[in-house]
Amino acid sequence: MAFGWIDDQAELRRRAGLVRTLRPRPADSPLLDLASNDYLGLAHHPEVTEGAAEAARTWGGGATGSRLVTGTTELHGELERELADFCGFEAALVFSSGYAANLAAVTALGPHGSLIVSDAGNHASLIDGCRLARGTTQVVAHAEPDAVRKALHTHDGPAVAVSDTVFSVDGDAAPLAGLAEACREYGAGLVVDDAHGLGVLGDGGRGAPYAAGLAGADDVVVTVTLSKSLGSQGGAVLGPARVIDHLVNAARTFIFDTGLAPAATGAALAALRLLRREPERAARARAVAGELHARLTAEGHQAVRPDAAVVSVRAPSPEEAVRWAADCRGAGLAVGCFRPPSVPDGISRLRLTARADLTDGQIERAVRVIGETRP
Amino acid sequence: MAFGWIDDQAELRRRAGLVRTLRPRPADSPLLDLASNDYLGLAHHPEVTEGAAEAARTWGGGATGSRLVTGTTELHGELERELADFCGFEAALVFSSGYAANLAAVTALGPHGSLIVSDAGNHASLIDGCRLARGTTQVVAHAEPDAVRKALHTHDGPAVAVSDTVFSVDGDAAPLAGLAEACREYGAGLVVDDAHGLGVLGDGGRGAPYAAGLAGADDVVVTVTLSKSLGSQGGAVLGPARVIDHLVNAARTFIFDTGLAPAATGAALAALRLLRREPERAARARAVAGELHARLTAEGHQAVRPDAAVVSVRAPSPEEAVRWAADCRGAGLAVGCFRPPSVPDGISRLRLTARADLTDGQIERAVRVIGETRP
Repeated sequence: MAFGWIDDQAELRRRAGLVRTLRPRPADSPLLDLASNDYLGLAHHPEVTEGAAEAARTWGGGATGSRLVTGTTELHGELERELADFCGFEAALVFSSGYAANLAAVTALGPHGSLIVSDAGNHASLIDGCRLARGTTQVVAHAEPDAVRKALHTHDGPAVAVSDTVFSVDGDAAPLAGLAEACREYGAGLVVDDAHGLGVLGDGGRGAPYAAGLAGADDVVVTVTLSKSLGSQGGAVLGPARVIDHLVNAARTFIFDTGLAPAATGAALAALRLLRREPERAARARAVAGELHARLTAEGHQAVRPDAAVVSVRAPSPEEAVRWAADCRGAGLAVGCFRPPSVPDGISRLRLTARADLTDGQIERAVRVIGETRP
Repeated sequence: MAFGWIDDQAELRRRAGLVRTLRPRPADSPLLDLASNDYLGLAHHPEVTEGAAEAARTWGGGATGSRLVTGTTELHGELERELADFCGFEAALVFSSGYAANLAAVTALGPHGSLIVSDAGNHASLIDGCRLARGTTQVVAHAEPDAVRKALHTHDGPAVAVSDTVFSVDGDAAPLAGLAEACREYGAGLVVDDAHGLGVLGDGGRGAPYAAGLAGADDVVVTVTLSKSLGSQGGAVLGPARVIDHLVNAARTFIFDTGLAPAATGAALAALRLLRREPERAARARAVAGELHARLTAEGHQAVRPDAAVVSVRAPSPEEAVRWAADCRGAGLAVGCFRPPSVPDGISRLRLTARADLTDGQIERAVRVIGETRP
């Protein structure tokens, strides 16, 4: 029977305790949220939601076509200009998701005959970009510029190194300056995904590349998401104008996808303008993460020191991680739970995200619940 | 220099007349639109834009996380239930784009050791799905069930055939009943992308699989987009509940992507409800396409008889296609222009899309402009 093999896989997942289910949330969830990626607390900010509403009314419910046909509105252009300017790059190109932006950047900059050097801890979307690209991918040790050097040393022709700036699982930062140096020694480009850096790291949230002095460099390309700090949906690629022009002409997830909906474009634009006006939100998100980490380690939890706003706490096993997260939920606290196959090292974790709008009382409550429910 | 090779490619494109540029449109464009995929004219319908606005206000500017963490709202659940019910399938799963839905369906249903039989005219997102999948892909002749049979005959183990229901370039329909029959002879699954069928084909716009009597079949999986007839953004996979559960657990573009923004979810839901209430919109879109085709061929244009709402008109060359489309635009008519590498056979075309809300006067004007600007 067609799809019969699916039932076998489902049975294996059940036995391994790895079944995933959807839990639709109500609009007025009573849970304290330390699970979302809404780092700056902007997803529900009235300026952001009104930005979405106003854009839908003015520009329609959808973009109506590919960005190359009818799907580019002046609103997309505005967001691209302001985003590039904010992060310090010459140009930007907006996509329907950060996933699509990563597929575009890696495939378009990793052509046939090229080498793509990919960090072992990279996000699924970068990995899929490597698999789709016509170039050859070499996976290298996590966060080691010398490993990148070694890979580049063996190759002749176009090359890029690809890395997250902040890794989603443990919240640790990539050694961006070191990676750029390694790339420059070999004339290679550097492509970094700042999904978890934008809005959190760098002066006023301008991102990890900005903080590392790489903004505007002609050999650096940055992808970002509009769905985390900017509280919306979508992604973007930032870089030299010639690279952006190249993507317009060569990136399949740009050419063959419908443009980002006006509402998402408008929400991201409103969030960006708000962040420019209230740059202290970025520092507050970092401070909350530091506070969470300090209190959790003081209580004996194994938590990685956060480089941005993700705080990762180790759990003894997938089953106990699931139970721990469920018990937190039962006590009114939403936390993330990362298990195989979402964790490259097979270690399950609770994943907490700091939000700039968490109060000291909420931080205290979160730490108390995590301690009381500990396996 | 890093990215130096990009300039060579740009030069090649310039010489071949294949440079693509973005043309941001204003909110009050005076152009008559025969270029968008807004088949039912719903993208600007006040119920749809208000659906987006209301959802943003209630649920926030973004979904805030993966569908598996915080990114599933009750609104997503509502859309999934109503979409599955409308198209006649057991369950549905919403994605941030139709592209992501196609990557998910093909990769999750084409595992290691399986055979994926892919129509030569398939959309880029299905092709990328085949390239990402761990199974082996065999590309077969366009719209030929016997070619699918021949491919399946050589394979032992799980297999799927993958096809668009309506092909984007020429607007021709796949022989769905014949494909399903071929698949059933070999116990293979059938995965079809109904991006251009939903809202246009089938009783009241229920789609091409519904029209072919395949709705609800346990060996058929359908992907749709929310960004064409439904005037929003996003995509969905429809099928048996066990297949949808499998995608929740195995599809990387579901697990590792942020959920669809509430505004897009709300807009699509409003459009779907409107279509249920006004099922005649689907027939009208088909009638407009038929009328466009009849008038254009009567005037000697080489136009393919439309099976849905896409009317494709051949152009003598890429350069002349570009000039033709530009001249149409100069005369107040927006038409699509498909050139290599977006056309599998290398033939450039004007691509016209019928909209249910086009008036007879607008159809007449469109045909006149296309004739007057003919190369």
